[in-house]
Amino acid sequence: MYQSKLFYKAFKEAPKDAEAVSHILLTRAGFIDQTATGLYSFLPLGFKVLKKIENIIREEMTNINGQEFLMPALTPKENWQKTGRWSSFDALFKLKGGDKEYALAPTHEEIISPLAKKIILSYKDLPLYLFQIQTKFRKELRVKSGLLRTREFIMKDLYSFHADRKDLESYYEKVSKAYLNIFKRCGIKVYKTLASGGSFSKYSHEYQAITESGEDVIHICNKCQLAINDEIKKETKKCPGCNGSKFEKKKAVEVGNIFELNDKYSLPFDLNFQDKDGREKPVLMGCYGIGLSRLMASVVENNNDGNGIIWPNEIAPYDIHLIEIKAKKEADKLYNKLCQQGKEVLYDDREDISPGEKFAESDLIGIPERWIISPKTLRSNSIEVKNRKEAKPKLIRLAF
Amino acid sequence: MYQSKLFYKAFKEAPKDAEAVSHILLTRAGFIDQTATGLYSFLPLGFKVLKKIENIIREEMTNINGQEFLMPALTPKENWQKTGRWSSFDALFKLKGGDKEYALAPTHEEIISPLAKKIILSYKDLPLYLFQIQTKFRKELRVKSGLLRTREFIMKDLYSFHADRKDLESYYEKVSKAYLNIFKRCGIKVYKTLASGGSFSKYSHEYQAITESGEDVIHICNKCQLAINDEIKKETKKCPGCNGSKFEKKKAVEVGNIFELNDKYSLPFDLNFQDKDGREKPVLMGCYGIGLSRLMASVVENNNDGNGIIWPNEIAPYDIHLIEIKAKKEADKLYNKLCQQGKEVLYDDREDISPGEKFAESDLIGIPERWIISPKTLRSNSIEVKNRKEAKPKLIRLAF
Repeated sequence: MYQSKLFYKAFKEAPKDAEAVSHILLTRAGFIDQTATGLYSFLPLGFKVLKKIENIIREEMTNINGQEFLMPALTPKENWQKTGRWSSFDALFKLKGGDKEYALAPTHEEIISPLAKKIILSYKDLPLYLFQIQTKFRKELRVKSGLLRTREFIMKDLYSFHADRKDLESYYEKVSKAYLNIFKRCGIKVYKTLASGGSFSKYSHEYQAITESGEDVIHICNKCQLAINDEIKKETKKCPGCNGSKFEKKKAVEVGNIFELNDKYSLPFDLNFQDKDGREKPVLMGCYGIGLSRLMASVVENNNDGNGIIWPNEIAPYDIHLIEIKAKKEADKLYNKLCQQGKEVLYDDREDISPGEKFAESDLIGIPERWIISPKTLRSNSIEVKNRKEAKPKLIRLAF
Repeated sequence: MYQSKLFYKAFKEAPKDAEAVSHILLTRAGFIDQTATGLYSFLPLGFKVLKKIENIIREEMTNINGQEFLMPALTPKENWQKTGRWSSFDALFKLKGGDKEYALAPTHEEIISPLAKKIILSYKDLPLYLFQIQTKFRKELRVKSGLLRTREFIMKDLYSFHADRKDLESYYEKVSKAYLNIFKRCGIKVYKTLASGGSFSKYSHEYQAITESGEDVIHICNKCQLAINDEIKKETKKCPGCNGSKFEKKKAVEVGNIFELNDKYSLPFDLNFQDKDGREKPVLMGCYGIGLSRLMASVVENNNDGNGIIWPNEIAPYDIHLIEIKAKKEADKLYNKLCQQGKEVLYDDREDISPGEKFAESDLIGIPERWIISPKTLRSNSIEVKNRKEAKPKLIRLAF
């Protein structure tokens, strides 16, 4: 991509009232733009990162046999009344259209359960694993941390359906492993944190990323590194993992969670199946979420230096930031060659920008590798290659 | 994909009140499910088709230098007040959240214009082409034709920004060509239809697919095949293309449109740029939409027979429908081999379904090629290959 043509602008100033470093850096580097309080556009650079995160999640969900589908965001009041969440879910955006009332879905148990009922009849139809990657809505009151907490966000929600608890538990563990793969591939350390359980299970799990801008608090056992959330900490003095009693307290943000729903939503929606023994039983469910846009911000919270973002390789918007300084002909040639090799290159070909500004913006954007081509490097038939994480650049010989 | 594991069920009966053939077939074949009036889920089969259409559109938009990004669906009242559409756009879903009022965006001129203003300063920043593929909302009163008219739908919207009319017009033509590629690749004949123009241009264009379930009417010139919409027809007796006076009247559905906005949205949002001559001028805009979910339904309206859907190759959910009849071992082997070759195969491995039912459901689903493996075909070391569009199957020799 020619940077001169990219829909992008770097800003020197942080957005007004911004506190979270991810909010500041993603805005200043032209990844996101605030449309209104708690509502953001993903500009082309930010959209590329989002798509890479989406693809990682899709791959990992497909690996554990998840089938992708898509439910509507606009959902009928009746479904939410059936579970009582029409009145109990404070953050539900509600609206009217004609003589109908709707909720903008922040999660989809109320939609997937009656849908699954149309298709699941017998034990032969189980297990089933369904996921979607979709825009969700929450009427959040406080939103001041950029993508960490928004009124509209992108989420992957997976729902699993089982004939018995053993099958549910075994799949729950599979999802747990897939989640750790996802976070690892996104280049972020995430604590699998014990949280309050569902109907039958003792615990559910939150995936917490450490950040000073987080609104959650987690407690990490000094001895076994098990993390527990604030609620669990209030109930117990000892680590549920090793009986240790010393914890480190950290501010964190929840980027994912996994939950054994069991029959919580099967019962109100009569989601039953006929088992091998001929008896009708409630389908057991699990639900598993990841907030993509929040994950993106959390990655930035944990991957930056004083000068800008440092994207992990697999989710960087581009592989290489090629910077041209008075060497247009050679840089054009190199850019075309790299593109032909299938590299994703952002090529700073802008003519009216000084080298100093180009470097400063490149630091801000945070593409892992920076290639500089200038009269100086050309004198030794070289380009200067700088890894964003390393202090010193290297000269690499190159035939032109 | 093993059909025994697919989240899918075929229905013998058409959904209540369904009239459009696409509504009936997509529901009966397990591609979509109605959540509420005018609101649908895309089940895994339908989602696969949707993604294929999305990828075709993404490719064609990228080919004409479109940059993908994403704006929020929840949009602030103030933006819509600025253009007067808060009160004039009847189909706007409105809602409250805290002390804020929002519209669920049915289109994004009111959001893209102030966003573009932050980045476009000079003629050097132009032209720009930005597109998104996103869920949109319309408070439609009458919704009875399945995906042809819904309250929530998926749309590609492209916006272009130009320094002068010549540049806008030249890009408009490029988009027009890209649109014809898209519809051709989706396997549907679409009429580029003259419609009322924008601020300066005489005409805009609608892309109309012929269908009895359509709510639009178009008039096709007998002589030159030019299509004009009903509004234009009321203003003119002669064909604007060849002066001919005989037209064929057809019911149709609009699957896309392209529109020269010129300065219609630049003016209210002060979207200006500094030109080469140093003067400040309004940016000229074009907007270009395609309804993905409606396109999917229109394809079905135009590609079916008495027994079911006949998917065009490029957007079929799978390449091959492999049907096993008492030949599990050989079919398993063949399925694995095809998958290894990168073929997308739906493998009907279900044990409790009769061959007759398998064939009937296969007709309904409409995958272009059907491969049948049975004791009969195995006797001649063959499989039976049937193209969904041809009456007669062929025997193809195969080494096991």
